[in-house]
Amino acid sequence: MKTKIAVAKGDGIGPEIMAAVLRIFEAANVQLDYEYVEMGKSYFDAGHSTGMTAAAKETIERLGLLFKGPMETPKGKGVKSINVTARKVWNTYANQRDFRSLNGVDTVFSKAGISINLTIVRENIEDTYGGIEHLLTNDVAVGRRIITRPGSAQVIRYAFEMARRKGYTKLACGHKANIMKLTDGLFLETFQEIAKEYPDIESSDIIVDDLCMKLVSRPELFQAIVLTNLQGDIVSDLCAGLVGGLGFAPSANIGDNISIFEAVHGTAPDIAGKGIANPTALLLSGILMLRYLGFTTAAANIENALLYTLEQGIHTGDFGNRSTQAANTDGFADAVIANL
Amino acid sequence: MKTKIAVAKGDGIGPEIMAAVLRIFEAANVQLDYEYVEMGKSYFDAGHSTGMTAAAKETIERLGLLFKGPMETPKGKGVKSINVTARKVWNTYANQRDFRSLNGVDTVFSKAGISINLTIVRENIEDTYGGIEHLLTNDVAVGRRIITRPGSAQVIRYAFEMARRKGYTKLACGHKANIMKLTDGLFLETFQEIAKEYPDIESSDIIVDDLCMKLVSRPELFQAIVLTNLQGDIVSDLCAGLVGGLGFAPSANIGDNISIFEAVHGTAPDIAGKGIANPTALLLSGILMLRYLGFTTAAANIENALLYTLEQGIHTGDFGNRSTQAANTDGFADAVIANL
Ligand SMILES: CC(C)[C@H](C(=O)O)[C@@H](O)C(=O)O
Ligand SMILES: CC(C)[C@H](C(=O)O)[C@@H](O)C(=O)O
Repeated sequence: MKTKIAVAKGDGIGPEIMAAVLRIFEAANVQLDYEYVEMGKSYFDAGHSTGMTAAAKETIERLGLLFKGPMETPKGKGVKSINVTARKVWNTYANQRDFRSLNGVDTVFSKAGISINLTIVRENIEDTYGGIEHLLTNDVAVGRRIITRPGSAQVIRYAFEMARRKGYTKLACGHKANIMKLTDGLFLETFQEIAKEYPDIESSDIIVDDLCMKLVSRPELFQAIVLTNLQGDIVSDLCAGLVGGLGFAPSANIGDNISIFEAVHGTAPDIAGKGIANPTALLLSGILMLRYLGFTTAAANIENALLYTLEQGIHTGDFGNRSTQAANTDGFADAVIANL
Repeated sequence: MKTKIAVAKGDGIGPEIMAAVLRIFEAANVQLDYEYVEMGKSYFDAGHSTGMTAAAKETIERLGLLFKGPMETPKGKGVKSINVTARKVWNTYANQRDFRSLNGVDTVFSKAGISINLTIVRENIEDTYGGIEHLLTNDVAVGRRIITRPGSAQVIRYAFEMARRKGYTKLACGHKANIMKLTDGLFLETFQEIAKEYPDIESSDIIVDDLCMKLVSRPELFQAIVLTNLQGDIVSDLCAGLVGGLGFAPSANIGDNISIFEAVHGTAPDIAGKGIANPTALLLSGILMLRYLGFTTAAANIENALLYTLEQGIHTGDFGNRSTQAANTDGFADAVIANL
């Protein structure tokens, strides 16, 4: 019997890149069935305040796994990001993003001969993402930043387990506990407590500003880093920049009951419908998802085909060496399929 | 008559690099007189809870300008960073850090042929640096983040004035107002209001995670960026990494009555007293200070000598090409003086 997952195509370029990725899955004989759910900008427009239908919510909760394209949140007072809402309502407390240099994707770092291979695990619910803010006067805004021990423990434990699973030898905790002594202090203390349960993983901590300085000069110092939500958000994007941008970075939101695998880049409305978008980030997220589901052979097969395709210099118009031929979304997917 | 400023030598390598810098000033015929003040780790140890004597405070307030070496804050509950305290008590609301590629200082970016030249202006007082935190329970920590319109306005106005003075054509505001809608929203709104007074400077805003991604891939997109305190702290260190680390980044804390020019790197206790520390960051901060005081000729003269010295491959042991000869602190200062 095939495993069933929920799929939300997303807005803008979402449907085209999702189609390309599912076509690659099909060709790789991935044993998955899809139930499509209604989520995204048009559902806000249709009056669903969370950007999804009740049926979508029910389906995702029943299946426990959502594969989602990029989504747009309409602008406006009181409208909350659908991506952030999805992470919150289903308590997907760990955001994992794997960053690695891809042959064929030129970056400042590849030009300098530096190869990137690191994972950021970001707490996905707490911190200033609680959105608890008020105006004391018209001139004074106060926001609240909440860090809890259980909330920290679950993501930190996930990070240690992940490090072990990936065969990493070390895990660092990024923080600003020298200034936020109680909030980041609690996160750091929780990290140090849990570290004792993982004597096989070398643990260390580093102040987040120093971390960013080191990441742009000696990224090879790190294998995996766990951080609170906002600092993790910033550091994740920094790392995406090291490997070529959000178009090359997968993202997994892991919870105990529901997990979400998504492309975190934008919906690129300017090129939507033209069939030229780059499906790489969504495909990389899909590969992470296949591994999570235990489809390790298919994951490795697709991953190798993708890496080889990029290495061949086949690329969509948004990146690559000028000297090589640009493919459209379908052409890129065809090339990956040919390399399976 | 000479202008008089307060000088705090700092801890660890502070005294040696300060001596080297003041020797260069002397050789360049800088018309300054110094009043040395007692500040730093040993004054905490001697029972001054702020890390400075009453006489130091009085002197700094009388002279309005402090040139300071790196300082260490002893660890311990309730002990506040002396660097942060100094910024707060004297309301030095704008932290300016100039980052530029230096010939002779190899980085990932110089190897890729990318030249860096940008300034970060960071709000220096508000945000979570207020240190307002409490434990709700042993497992729940709450921190407060405060952003005010006047506090934002003064640093934003400084950034626009600085941009104009430096002949920049644009200024960006980094923020996370998509999540912290009221606090960062207030900062952004203030930026957009003040921008109207500077039609000659092209203003734009960018979400801080996207900013970090762009800074590590296309730093040439930016000339100057203004940010709230913690985000500015993180982005400043990221930028320091682009040009070779904190050893090559000057820092100015600007207030209406008192300003502080400092090296923000550590005190390096392991090499203190050995005469091998790199005085470049303190010298660059000193050059910024000379410009601030209106000593533009001396500033340019010393700056050119420093740049030429680095370009010649003369360097302290902490950096440089292996093929070139390492100098000690005095030897480096001698070389700068010879190039004046
Ligand atoms: C879109 C935005 C709200 C989101 C975040 O801040 O988490 C994004 O930056 C991300 O990292 O997925
Ligand atoms: C030492 C630390 C408290 C300080 C800060 O966070 O401001 C430092 O990182 C800096 O940037 O000067």
